[in-house]
Amino acid sequence: MTDTAQSEPSSKKTNILFIMYDQLRFDYLSCAGHPHLDTPNFDRVAKMGVRFTNAYIQSPICGASRMSTYTGRYVSSHGAAWNGYPLRVGEHTMGDHLRKAGMDCWLIGKTHMKADADGMARLGLSPDSVIGARQAECGFDIWIRDDGLWAQGPDGFYDERRSPYNEYLKSKGYPSENPWADFANAGVDDQGDMASGWMFKNTDKAANIREEHSETPWLTDRTMDFIEQAEGPWCAHVSFIKPHWPYIVPAPYHDMYGANHVPAPKRHEMEREDPHPVYGAYMENRICSAFQQEEVRQKVIPAYMGLIKQCDDQLGRLLDFLEETGRMESTMIVLTSDHGDYLGDHWMGEKDLFHEQSVKVPMIIYDPRPEADATRGKTCDALVESIDLAPTFVDLAGAKVPDHILEGRSLLPWLEGKTPEWREFAICEYDYSATPQCVKLGLEPKDARLFMVFDGRYKLMHAEGGLRPMLFDLQSDPDEFNDLAKQPGHEDILDALYDKLATWGRRLAQRVTRSEDDIKNMRGRSLRRGVLPFMIDGSEVDEELTMYYRGPAPKWDSLDD
Amino acid sequence: MTDTAQSEPSSKKTNILFIMYDQLRFDYLSCAGHPHLDTPNFDRVAKMGVRFTNAYIQSPICGASRMSTYTGRYVSSHGAAWNGYPLRVGEHTMGDHLRKAGMDCWLIGKTHMKADADGMARLGLSPDSVIGARQAECGFDIWIRDDGLWAQGPDGFYDERRSPYNEYLKSKGYPSENPWADFANAGVDDQGDMASGWMFKNTDKAANIREEHSETPWLTDRTMDFIEQAEGPWCAHVSFIKPHWPYIVPAPYHDMYGANHVPAPKRHEMEREDPHPVYGAYMENRICSAFQQEEVRQKVIPAYMGLIKQCDDQLGRLLDFLEETGRMESTMIVLTSDHGDYLGDHWMGEKDLFHEQSVKVPMIIYDPRPEADATRGKTCDALVESIDLAPTFVDLAGAKVPDHILEGRSLLPWLEGKTPEWREFAICEYDYSATPQCVKLGLEPKDARLFMVFDGRYKLMHAEGGLRPMLFDLQSDPDEFNDLAKQPGHEDILDALYDKLATWGRRLAQRVTRSEDDIKNMRGRSLRRGVLPFMIDGSEVDEELTMYYRGPAPKWDSLDD
Repeated sequence: MTDTAQSEPSSKKTNILFIMYDQLRFDYLSCAGHPHLDTPNFDRVAKMGVRFTNAYIQSPICGASRMSTYTGRYVSSHGAAWNGYPLRVGEHTMGDHLRKAGMDCWLIGKTHMKADADGMARLGLSPDSVIGARQAECGFDIWIRDDGLWAQGPDGFYDERRSPYNEYLKSKGYPSENPWADFANAGVDDQGDMASGWMFKNTDKAANIREEHSETPWLTDRTMDFIEQAEGPWCAHVSFIKPHWPYIVPAPYHDMYGANHVPAPKRHEMEREDPHPVYGAYMENRICSAFQQEEVRQKVIPAYMGLIKQCDDQLGRLLDFLEETGRMESTMIVLTSDHGDYLGDHWMGEKDLFHEQSVKVPMIIYDPRPEADATRGKTCDALVESIDLAPTFVDLAGAKVPDHILEGRSLLPWLEGKTPEWREFAICEYDYSATPQCVKLGLEPKDARLFMVFDGRYKLMHAEGGLRPMLFDLQSDPDEFNDLAKQPGHEDILDALYDKLATWGRRLAQRVTRSEDDIKNMRGRSLRRGVLPFMIDGSEVDEELTMYYRGPAPKWDSLDD
Repeated sequence: MTDTAQSEPSSKKTNILFIMYDQLRFDYLSCAGHPHLDTPNFDRVAKMGVRFTNAYIQSPICGASRMSTYTGRYVSSHGAAWNGYPLRVGEHTMGDHLRKAGMDCWLIGKTHMKADADGMARLGLSPDSVIGARQAECGFDIWIRDDGLWAQGPDGFYDERRSPYNEYLKSKGYPSENPWADFANAGVDDQGDMASGWMFKNTDKAANIREEHSETPWLTDRTMDFIEQAEGPWCAHVSFIKPHWPYIVPAPYHDMYGANHVPAPKRHEMEREDPHPVYGAYMENRICSAFQQEEVRQKVIPAYMGLIKQCDDQLGRLLDFLEETGRMESTMIVLTSDHGDYLGDHWMGEKDLFHEQSVKVPMIIYDPRPEADATRGKTCDALVESIDLAPTFVDLAGAKVPDHILEGRSLLPWLEGKTPEWREFAICEYDYSATPQCVKLGLEPKDARLFMVFDGRYKLMHAEGGLRPMLFDLQSDPDEFNDLAKQPGHEDILDALYDKLATWGRRLAQRVTRSEDDIKNMRGRSLRRGVLPFMIDGSEVDEELTMYYRGPAPKWDSLDD
């Protein structure tokens, strides 16, 4: 595959527009079959490229999922297992690999990356240096970094950085210290009071902001600014905060959808009967309890749909811009998300667990190269993981994929209509050590870890801490209501999935300083450097190898003491 | 445990003399029951402290084993899986942890560590800086670094550094460019020609050097130089190259032992009947074929014993020095090795596989603190791993053991006569990707990996690459001749050991930027920083938490466009 890509001059001229939406569910697009939500621009990219229908993230939480996507490595390999868990200094990222391949790698928007300040200090790295800045920013060069959560509470700001978006709103004249909270993410109630988007009762109100100034159009403008001046080859990670909560959207999107557009919740009473302890603990938390109320779903989901509709319209602007400026033939476009949103399905809100609504994401890739003409408009149901993007980009940049570091696999063969040998199971992990559920279950942080193994039909959830597993058969039970692990008779299936998890557990993830080729090249080297721990009299090898160990014995009669 | 140590002022005053011998077999000491080899000084330390009779290294090869000992982490966790595979930049070492605890950490001798030059360059670290030097030297400050293999061949030196030992011999007047090879590791034959210690036919000759100038006395002198000037608290890693090959020793040690002192080889014909493919490939290599010849064993083993006897005498010098200078009460003494030596047992030479002769090492610890008085002269049969030393030293230094990074466990409880909750199995790994055996078996480097799981009775060897396992019952078959995996009826035992391997495979090894305490302390923090993704109307939480989301709505009528 790599060799093919390397032999293609076309790939050398291709830039990458790597667009990530935050908390966008796989099935909230018309091309993915949503009954009411029309997303013509997502569909337009799907028609130009390939839509991967079985794309799984490596952790159902922003930070850990993104660290896997940006490093091309599983969570247990890079270790940044939850929001605010720093990515260890020195960990290789997409940017490291792409720059080595001669491609710039820029960030426009959110990463949710926390720098390993202690590690950087230990190595004497200053965030002010180019090297230090890249270490502190997950390997990206920064066009704009805005994680999009400028929440404020009694202990201060959730994100202590300066908000470029707040600066923008202030420059536009919005009179507030935190216009993100007061305008972009709040409406106005009947008394003229602030109606914060944090509160579900307000999610049907229009955000108190001019639509073109809201977050998605703002970042789209910044993206066009970047592209206008960029000289290739470049990879731009355009990372939108939406449709992530707070669930509130400006007019006209706030009332485009109503309760009649809200699908019935996918949930079943049997899920609440003796639920798995972790699942049970989540079902009872505040956000899940809220989403269990139909009136909450009917207020929140239309806002979520409105946010997606706005994302689609802004994507349309971007696509038109690429066409009008003649860049469509030289730009790979990737559309994906960092995880889904339960929206009340399975009695859950948010993400955190391993049902499809949480771990499956949209993955649409338009590859402009002629090699990809055969697959335009097609879907691919291979088991794809978010960690496959980094190697795909390195491959496109024409470099050999460093598979001793990157654990994902290039998707170019699929885009070119080939059928490569592929993984037999997808892995997802969740570390809930910092959550109230860990406390509620009385677990130590080290034991609050979940692993998903999905082989395309069966999905296992293994829980550390001595807790039982969960098992679903998505063929006979596509909605994942029926936990087979609670019933006898599935030992063989559990064993088979546990074997896959064990195989994965023994994977080669940390031998990052020696590639397969390095190793082949170093073989026998010590022999030619005089290390000969096996000879009886020297006749076993060429004379050349023993040249330094023969001849008259030197004398030491006259040592100066 | 940690708290105890912290509350002990005595620990604060204790320095650590961490002595490692290279390739010293667990059973070649009189305190371990060797029938002919008398090692009164090893025994003396055993009488003063505790001898651990089930101490296992984490890889049967110098480099990988040492990287585990120095990082306190398994090979699959640090990734430096074989000799010359660099330790990734940023990996925490014993030195990092001890300096943080206020204890210096010095190297006197060998580490076999290869610096991650690419990684250092990527992070802009210069080996000339203090930080860079420690990164390049496995976290140690260097008193003397000498890996003791100054072999030379047509492609140059095996070790391209400058040899402090060769400089020393030259300063003493030994007339040679490489006196290590020409004097310290060669004898003189009847024709007056050099009789290299590389060749087994020469191993019964005396090395052509004055005994006090040979490697073990030289490093012992350097150790006393260090101690004379050192101000505590300090940890000194004194790392001898011997009794590692080349097998040759100066007079009078060269003829202290003869064929009559060589134990019969522990091997059985059944081991050669349909051997495991990896075992079979090793049995046929040059060094094993040589050690399968009794005349080779009878020439080599007496030299190996002489080298150990010299190590024992030099240890005696060191112990006397500590007593005479009043340092014995303030110095913990650790005696161990990086792996064993088959010496013809199991039809093998060298190390590489998982039989006791290869993976079990001496582990003798003298703890001068009064807390350890109860265990003096005792043995402990707990399953100890080399990675337990780093946490033991951190514990002794009075710091809390960072168990989110260190995978070993402090041995202080055992030394204090306590019975801590302990591991149920020991792990050892071997990566033979760079060896001829990998080529012979037609494996890719990534598949040339072996894992040992030993639960105190049963020992499993799992081989990647689709190869079958090996299984031994050391209770009914202490010599490990009978591979039970070749016979039916042991599926349950194999399953149980594979379950342990799978549990280990899911271990938390890379979440190194957040301790268990860090995680407990960060819980609920986002809530007090305004992240409230679960409210219906705000009444769910204290008013304080929503303070920034209430009040009259600001207006934006007059925006400047």
